[in-house]
Amino acid sequence: MRDLFALSIRRVDGQLSIIDQTLLPHEEQWVDINSPEDMVAAIKQLMVRGAPLIGVAAALALGDFANKGASNEQFLNAAEELRRSRPTAVNLMWAIDRLLSVKPYSADSILSLAESIFDEDVQLCEKIALAGATLLEDGDSILTHCNTGGLATAGVGTALGIIQQAHRQGKSIHVYVDETRPLLQGGRLTTWELEKLAIPYTLICDNMAASLMKEGKISKAIVGSDRVAANGDFANKIGTYSVAVACQYHGVPFYVAAPYTTVDLQCPSGREIPIEIRRPEEVRGVKGQFGEVIWAPEKSNVYNPAFDVTPSELVSGWIFEQGVLSKDDIRSGRLAQLKGE
Amino acid sequence: MRDLFALSIRRVDGQLSIIDQTLLPHEEQWVDINSPEDMVAAIKQLMVRGAPLIGVAAALALGDFANKGASNEQFLNAAEELRRSRPTAVNLMWAIDRLLSVKPYSADSILSLAESIFDEDVQLCEKIALAGATLLEDGDSILTHCNTGGLATAGVGTALGIIQQAHRQGKSIHVYVDETRPLLQGGRLTTWELEKLAIPYTLICDNMAASLMKEGKISKAIVGSDRVAANGDFANKIGTYSVAVACQYHGVPFYVAAPYTTVDLQCPSGREIPIEIRRPEEVRGVKGQFGEVIWAPEKSNVYNPAFDVTPSELVSGWIFEQGVLSKDDIRSGRLAQLKGE
Repeated sequence: MRDLFALSIRRVDGQLSIIDQTLLPHEEQWVDINSPEDMVAAIKQLMVRGAPLIGVAAALALGDFANKGASNEQFLNAAEELRRSRPTAVNLMWAIDRLLSVKPYSADSILSLAESIFDEDVQLCEKIALAGATLLEDGDSILTHCNTGGLATAGVGTALGIIQQAHRQGKSIHVYVDETRPLLQGGRLTTWELEKLAIPYTLICDNMAASLMKEGKISKAIVGSDRVAANGDFANKIGTYSVAVACQYHGVPFYVAAPYTTVDLQCPSGREIPIEIRRPEEVRGVKGQFGEVIWAPEKSNVYNPAFDVTPSELVSGWIFEQGVLSKDDIRSGRLAQLKGE
Repeated sequence: MRDLFALSIRRVDGQLSIIDQTLLPHEEQWVDINSPEDMVAAIKQLMVRGAPLIGVAAALALGDFANKGASNEQFLNAAEELRRSRPTAVNLMWAIDRLLSVKPYSADSILSLAESIFDEDVQLCEKIALAGATLLEDGDSILTHCNTGGLATAGVGTALGIIQQAHRQGKSIHVYVDETRPLLQGGRLTTWELEKLAIPYTLICDNMAASLMKEGKISKAIVGSDRVAANGDFANKIGTYSVAVACQYHGVPFYVAAPYTTVDLQCPSGREIPIEIRRPEEVRGVKGQFGEVIWAPEKSNVYNPAFDVTPSELVSGWIFEQGVLSKDDIRSGRLAQLKGE
């Protein structure tokens, strides 16, 4: 069994492990994953997160399970458990459906397919980065939201991969990083990645982005996605829609970057995308390796959707591995082509 | 010397004290203020905050100082120190200018004027509440940002005073409370006030407001202000502009509520309002009586303006003690009338 390496998942001498993203940026701790149940728990607790990475991680855990001798029934049960671990990121369902399509059930075939899902994600990221970097110009200041880099995929990332690629090409790029309340994926993870990459950035609270646009300090925004519907609407981390509205008002181009594995043609529009609602404690305070504090009244009533939906009319371009799609491309069915359907 | 009582400042048997707002909502601790230096420190540390309250607090501290026998020179120095304690809220400069206009210097006159500034703020809040409540309808869901209640004024507040008044009138009002990063005045203080008032509310992260508007869950937004320029542009807590842009996009009426003491005719527009930039630590984590945690990389580059400016074109109405002003009212010079100029 060959070794696999990514920024936040790896398989070395057959042992699957993940970096515990809840501990970043202060602690880089690898955690062994020995069963599908381990991976379900890791996904639910956001130790593993990022739509493409969740799909890859679920595939590798199932491949490992099959390889360890799971019966077909055990495998099917584990696959269903994993499918239910997070509802919005469709890459998870896509990866599981691909593994379930292996007929007859064969450990070797499943392991091999899981590895190819990993490899493919690396390649998809590379292509997205190259396609998206053509949009970025020397001197751009790019707003991004949540984390869409090496921690969110098996490769260089989606939105952050594009920024990294433009930086590598020698373009001077400054990144404005939305901290991304409540779980602070921007403040904890995107900052950590950008420091590793030595790309200049400024961390802001989410509510500062619009006033930066008013001051002309943001030239483009790029975000990732957890699910793109057939009409181009897409779900992404809560707060993305607010960025899109502010971009529209200020005439700032707003792009979404994703691999084809994030497209869900079964959802005609964003209205059909299920949105995960999370625990109120996440909004009443913060919790992580850095500590836990609660500042709101103990029983305060809270609304805590993990994602929101941005309608296609607010999107300037959809950056996929095959290139940048326009609204006309979306209307003319290019998403179905992308999916090979 | 008569006693004075407000939600967050009081003078009992001649002893001035404030509630330490940095400890709320978990601890209600009153802190004695024995000198102008004590008040400068309290304002800088945000133990006392809210534009109208800062003006009242500075006036009472200076009245107390004069009453204790400060020389004219000591008084003038203390007034200048207080004036510099926070740059954006113009109520502070207004209150100090009023006290400095007492000629000749007289402890009795200054103490009496400081008390009348306190009394006037209570009355202004009442009138703002009554004027603004006419805009609210049974069944309204109101978005608000930061804290604009009894903790921000000597009276019932500005935006939150209006909500309280409508609630008292028997209108069914639900409040969506922006947590208001980085210092969480919404999550800590507005929630605390609303619980005391038994007004139903939902706490949200700032980045959720726009998607709530898209879902039709917010019927109006009301915010306070730290300074209103002559053309109706106004400064308020960072994130207010983002709310205004989202309201504009979704056709949600957006109101600002303030007393005339917040109007600064010396600022022709929002461009002339000085914006306080605060420490990066506030964005890298959170700190309060609830504890201190830092989640961002230690040296992360941060942008941390305490306020932003909302241009008058985004404002549906300016709620003052004399009534609700329209854009036409602003253009026709009603702000100068309001200031008696």
